[in-house]
Amino acid sequence: MARPTALSGFPEWLPGQRIAEQLVLDTLRRTFELHGFSPVETRAVEPLDQLLRKGETSKEVYVLRRLQADAEGGDAGLGLHFDLTVPFARYVQEFAGRLVFPFRRYQIQRAWRGERPQEGRFREFTQADIDVVGTGELPFAYDVELPLVVLAALAALPIPPVLMQVNNRKLVEGFCAAIGVADYPAALRAVDKLDKVGPTGVRAELTGVAGCTPDQAAALLGLAAVSGDAAEVRAAVAATGARDPLLDEGLAELVAVLEAAQAAAPGRVVADLSITRGLDYYTGTVYETRLVGHESLGSVCSGGRYDNLVSAGTVTYPGVGLSIGVSRLLSRLFGRGLLAATRPTPTCVLVAVPDEDSRPAAAAVAAALRARGVPTEVSATAARFGRQIRSADRAGIPFVWFPAANADTGSDQVKDIRSGDQLDADPDSWQPPAGDLHPRLVATTPG
Amino acid sequence: MARPTALSGFPEWLPGQRIAEQLVLDTLRRTFELHGFSPVETRAVEPLDQLLRKGETSKEVYVLRRLQADAEGGDAGLGLHFDLTVPFARYVQEFAGRLVFPFRRYQIQRAWRGERPQEGRFREFTQADIDVVGTGELPFAYDVELPLVVLAALAALPIPPVLMQVNNRKLVEGFCAAIGVADYPAALRAVDKLDKVGPTGVRAELTGVAGCTPDQAAALLGLAAVSGDAAEVRAAVAATGARDPLLDEGLAELVAVLEAAQAAAPGRVVADLSITRGLDYYTGTVYETRLVGHESLGSVCSGGRYDNLVSAGTVTYPGVGLSIGVSRLLSRLFGRGLLAATRPTPTCVLVAVPDEDSRPAAAAVAAALRARGVPTEVSATAARFGRQIRSADRAGIPFVWFPAANADTGSDQVKDIRSGDQLDADPDSWQPPAGDLHPRLVATTPG
Repeated sequence: MARPTALSGFPEWLPGQRIAEQLVLDTLRRTFELHGFSPVETRAVEPLDQLLRKGETSKEVYVLRRLQADAEGGDAGLGLHFDLTVPFARYVQEFAGRLVFPFRRYQIQRAWRGERPQEGRFREFTQADIDVVGTGELPFAYDVELPLVVLAALAALPIPPVLMQVNNRKLVEGFCAAIGVADYPAALRAVDKLDKVGPTGVRAELTGVAGCTPDQAAALLGLAAVSGDAAEVRAAVAATGARDPLLDEGLAELVAVLEAAQAAAPGRVVADLSITRGLDYYTGTVYETRLVGHESLGSVCSGGRYDNLVSAGTVTYPGVGLSIGVSRLLSRLFGRGLLAATRPTPTCVLVAVPDEDSRPAAAAVAAALRARGVPTEVSATAARFGRQIRSADRAGIPFVWFPAANADTGSDQVKDIRSGDQLDADPDSWQPPAGDLHPRLVATTPG
Repeated sequence: MARPTALSGFPEWLPGQRIAEQLVLDTLRRTFELHGFSPVETRAVEPLDQLLRKGETSKEVYVLRRLQADAEGGDAGLGLHFDLTVPFARYVQEFAGRLVFPFRRYQIQRAWRGERPQEGRFREFTQADIDVVGTGELPFAYDVELPLVVLAALAALPIPPVLMQVNNRKLVEGFCAAIGVADYPAALRAVDKLDKVGPTGVRAELTGVAGCTPDQAAALLGLAAVSGDAAEVRAAVAATGARDPLLDEGLAELVAVLEAAQAAAPGRVVADLSITRGLDYYTGTVYETRLVGHESLGSVCSGGRYDNLVSAGTVTYPGVGLSIGVSRLLSRLFGRGLLAATRPTPTCVLVAVPDEDSRPAAAAVAAALRARGVPTEVSATAARFGRQIRSADRAGIPFVWFPAANADTGSDQVKDIRSGDQLDADPDSWQPPAGDLHPRLVATTPG
């Protein structure tokens, strides 16, 4: 049959890239667990009413149908989740009685959106989320802690530095109230498009859909142009002359995040008052994150505070969380040749097989090496040694092991096929250099 | 809104169970990598023609549709994969030019089937597969090696022992030829149902659909009753009087697997000539695996040799592989209370906060502990210490840390809340007992 071709928007990695991806996910997981986040995975599907209840039809949900089901029977009404926030909100509500709050969880999983594929936007992609959810109230301290956790996770990777941009919706809402803008959500959605349509487009939407006067639109665009550190934002907001209690509260929260970040991760977090996040459920702090030198890729880590995403009867579950776009990040880094594993296979040693009769002896060497944690394969064929060495080289295996021709008089030898060095070695004691035992993640230079 | 309810067939774990599942998957991954298997993940979807080309309509494929797509536009013709073998076969063909053969890969991923849910059968489930695929020919040695790798992986888990049952399709096909059964595939499918419908049911299908004479049906049922070690199988097959070159070849392969397994994993592998696997693509060795004491659960690890699963033009890619049913295994062990993580949270230490002014000092303690790899949280509220201790207890966190009230004169203390022991401790040097640093996987006794 004809060779199958790739499906646009459904990226797949070669084994070496998958090894690199695993090492990235291992690092994120380790950092999240070090900060006390518990792992959760949710099912891939949710009832459609759950997926659409925030009006998120723009997310292009994939709906499921059983091939052999009667027209509307069986699993009608199920769709693949388009992010990890909606399923987590449902999970918290479903299992509330068996969770301990504030509940800290991380979730590393795929999601699906039927969007038009383009760079950084896929139909199937992996996200790594952290959230803290409380019952009734959730201390503001988490708005400060969570961005520092994801920054620590990203800083542990050999990738370009990131710059996190922070804003606070209370500040923007209070500003709207101060200058008399009635339709605050519409104004917010307009400002959110600044990156895409520019100031002229935003002005048009503000004075159109959002019902602003030209002066109000100019004031909002002025606010959106504010960025910088705590002192700069405080000064710029004061200079607008707008006064409102909610504005003050939002500004105080924003400043608190900026000051804590300046101490813990200097230079990595700035205020940017054009960041509003399109999603309706954010109620306070909002975050976006750019990979420095790759700003065109869009945000690689976004999130915010939500006070009302989940509620059941009289109980509300406020939360704050961020989501790292792992597929977006890796597709750029792999595509530009900036990140790789040190080898494309877990195997450290290939045991050569001089002839088929010696296969059991080769297997015994492999077992001895594995017993001490050295990833080992036995050669598939008893070809000439030169061919077995070339085969290891092609597979990216750094060491080839030659069992002694005569176990009584000779010694086993191991060759580093990168340097060509070949030395006597004992399978019960030999260790590779620490950096060669397992593949490692390294920054690379485009070739 | 009303509390959401579980979807039948889509299992979800509580955080403690997910920690246990991760530890299981970590162990499988470590064992597979130690044996030189490279990780691969494939996209969740395949074109429907790929999913259905082996006539696998019984697998109840889930078809995707974009909610906002025109009737047949966009992603029509995509379905969720129902196993990891079909997508891997497609992956090998698509990326053949960039893989090194024989290609050893493991793949741990979810799959979906629209089947009627029952114990051990889910609509969404996780499988852990290993396969070796060659070009043109693949040495028989892998039929011997791969079952030993999965047995090593399963033996590394604190779960009941397993018993692997092995057969060889060449043996059965040769036997059919020897006794004059023409429709070998139909006979095989009939025998495959022995577990479900019993000898009477199989006899009816053999003499009906499969067109056997009563004598042929009796001979096949006699063969299917054969089990035991290499010597027993050799004797039982000889006693049937059937002679055929393919039968001899299959018997020799089966004996080779049994003898190697007897040396490497004594008592864990037996011949069972009723095992045929329903799938058409197996051509030699076939494997099934029962969890001892839980035989009613069905096979928890199955697979076999396939010589023609993938072919592109004149190139064929023969392979051999096995698939561990992780969800089936874990749902039984969790359901019976037989497997758990030592705690339901990664957090080892909760740093108590005496009052909000002391929060920065508590955060500094947490940072010092994390810097040395100790998973740590800071208490969410500055409640009375008794309440903070109870909160740690409820969350399953073993240690509570009390920062010194006066850093100049006092010392920090740490309490093991299981024993009640409380001792002076320094955040720059204290280590928990090794077994308490991270959650571990343990066999448990039903409570």
